[in-house]
Amino acid sequence: MDKSTLFLSVDFTAAEKLGSIHDGLDGRPVIDWSKGERPDSLAGIKYALVWEFDHDLFDRMPDLEVIFSAGAGVDKVLSNPALPQGIPIVRFVDHSLTTRMSEWICMQCLNHLRQQKHYDEAQKKAVWADAPQPQASDVTIGIMGLGVLGQDSAQKLKALGFNVLGWSRTKKEMEGVDCYNESGLDEFLSQCHYLVGLLPLTAGTTGIFNKGLFTKLAKHPVLSSPIFINGGRGKSQVEVDIASCLEDGALGGVSLDVFENEPLDADSPLWRFDNAYIFPHVAANSDVMSLGRYVDGQIKRHESGEGLENLVDLSLGY
Amino acid sequence: MDKSTLFLSVDFTAAEKLGSIHDGLDGRPVIDWSKGERPDSLAGIKYALVWEFDHDLFDRMPDLEVIFSAGAGVDKVLSNPALPQGIPIVRFVDHSLTTRMSEWICMQCLNHLRQQKHYDEAQKKAVWADAPQPQASDVTIGIMGLGVLGQDSAQKLKALGFNVLGWSRTKKEMEGVDCYNESGLDEFLSQCHYLVGLLPLTAGTTGIFNKGLFTKLAKHPVLSSPIFINGGRGKSQVEVDIASCLEDGALGGVSLDVFENEPLDADSPLWRFDNAYIFPHVAANSDVMSLGRYVDGQIKRHESGEGLENLVDLSLGY
Repeated sequence: MDKSTLFLSVDFTAAEKLGSIHDGLDGRPVIDWSKGERPDSLAGIKYALVWEFDHDLFDRMPDLEVIFSAGAGVDKVLSNPALPQGIPIVRFVDHSLTTRMSEWICMQCLNHLRQQKHYDEAQKKAVWADAPQPQASDVTIGIMGLGVLGQDSAQKLKALGFNVLGWSRTKKEMEGVDCYNESGLDEFLSQCHYLVGLLPLTAGTTGIFNKGLFTKLAKHPVLSSPIFINGGRGKSQVEVDIASCLEDGALGGVSLDVFENEPLDADSPLWRFDNAYIFPHVAANSDVMSLGRYVDGQIKRHESGEGLENLVDLSLGY
Repeated sequence: MDKSTLFLSVDFTAAEKLGSIHDGLDGRPVIDWSKGERPDSLAGIKYALVWEFDHDLFDRMPDLEVIFSAGAGVDKVLSNPALPQGIPIVRFVDHSLTTRMSEWICMQCLNHLRQQKHYDEAQKKAVWADAPQPQASDVTIGIMGLGVLGQDSAQKLKALGFNVLGWSRTKKEMEGVDCYNESGLDEFLSQCHYLVGLLPLTAGTTGIFNKGLFTKLAKHPVLSSPIFINGGRGKSQVEVDIASCLEDGALGGVSLDVFENEPLDADSPLWRFDNAYIFPHVAANSDVMSLGRYVDGQIKRHESGEGLENLVDLSLGY
């Protein structure tokens, strides 16, 4: 049976080095808009995989049945005024995306715990100098956002020996992880030496990581100031507050993969703090081949009547 | 009941910042040789906790029953010509020492996988630049040395998604980890993208991590050159070979916590390689309070007839 065509509007850039979307699509034909393909008509196209798109794009696809987001976060897709009404949107939920985020979260928590920056500096000076080091079990990490990514990170941080707490809008149940919801936010924060952000971007989470919240975090007897790690969405954080808290010691360190505006401006002070780790939104870079495999699999589910998975709930915004 | 005195000859330096040996010893009296205490007689002393000691020290302890090593590795104690014959030696095996080593091993494997040094450099230049990133499940890590530390690291690396293989002199059985022994060394090495050293120092492991061995490691299609991580003993590695392999690309990176001579000389080229992480023997710094608790607990076992744990087998050297 011939496969239906996939319309593609995603600029993969460096990610493509590890394989191409075609490797995962199992022979499905593609119209690659991002590479300049411009067919006379987009009629007949039932599936579109997008990240960015122009204002009149979907007007030209009268037969569109499903929109696939190229990332787990869909705020970029949802906030695009050109998004058509009534078309189901499927989020990319992929084991590799989940595990990559957990790799990054675990790496950053360990680098702060074990003071990698101290040792980097000592190495640069060829100086043999140790530093006091609490162990993972002395540190409590709070994760805000307990979706698939948050839950996987929680399990892996626990495996590494950290104490882990969780917070989400609607209270979750997780084995070995005490969970809090909105009414328990202050109680949650007061126990967290490290705070990990894995929240979707919604009206309620915009700017949630601000000075008021940071000052409610716990101070560790040895590490002293709390650490903030954001792998979620940049607009959830107030960067002027982060800089000010790093300056005055309210925060002892940060790892940021996301920013209010990306790419982060070269003039941002965040690049230059001693205990800040800055990343160009790569914590959970989509594996392009996996994304292809996922979209191909979802189209097969849709066409066989099995139904789509990981549909976006527009009323929640994620 | 009065507690018997512990003779102490360990220089804890920075480690003491996190608590003192006395906090763990539960009121047991101590003669602290390393802090200059010099009683007229050492007769009656039954227990000694040592790391370094002078040539005639134990001659002055006719009643010595047990020697405790302040670290998990005992080569330093065993190689001291002043070590008396026939006195049982107990290794420090402690959950915190084990978990700290695993923290360090996991941190280093993740930093190489996720190219922390690339992002450190990009950050320094305030440049937004991503890099291809394979995932943990694309990488096979081989651990040489499957004692308590090696097994714990193996489980945690597996939890993070890495493929893990194990090698030890006598073949071990581990769930989910294919294990090899001496006759399978080449087959083991040919599959390892990363090699983790957690071997005790014996005649058979001295200089085992050399150019001949490194060139047998697997080349990853994306990461290309193998990574060597040593948390075991410095004299297991040939540093001139490590430098040469980093130079010619036979090794793509290293993380070294131990060295042939410690502290590492400021003139060593190892400090200055782009993809070398150098640490001052802190991967599993003994938690001083835990060490005290452990020694106190072992003395209680010994005195109650329960028997000592983790005795060193002098015929094996560990």
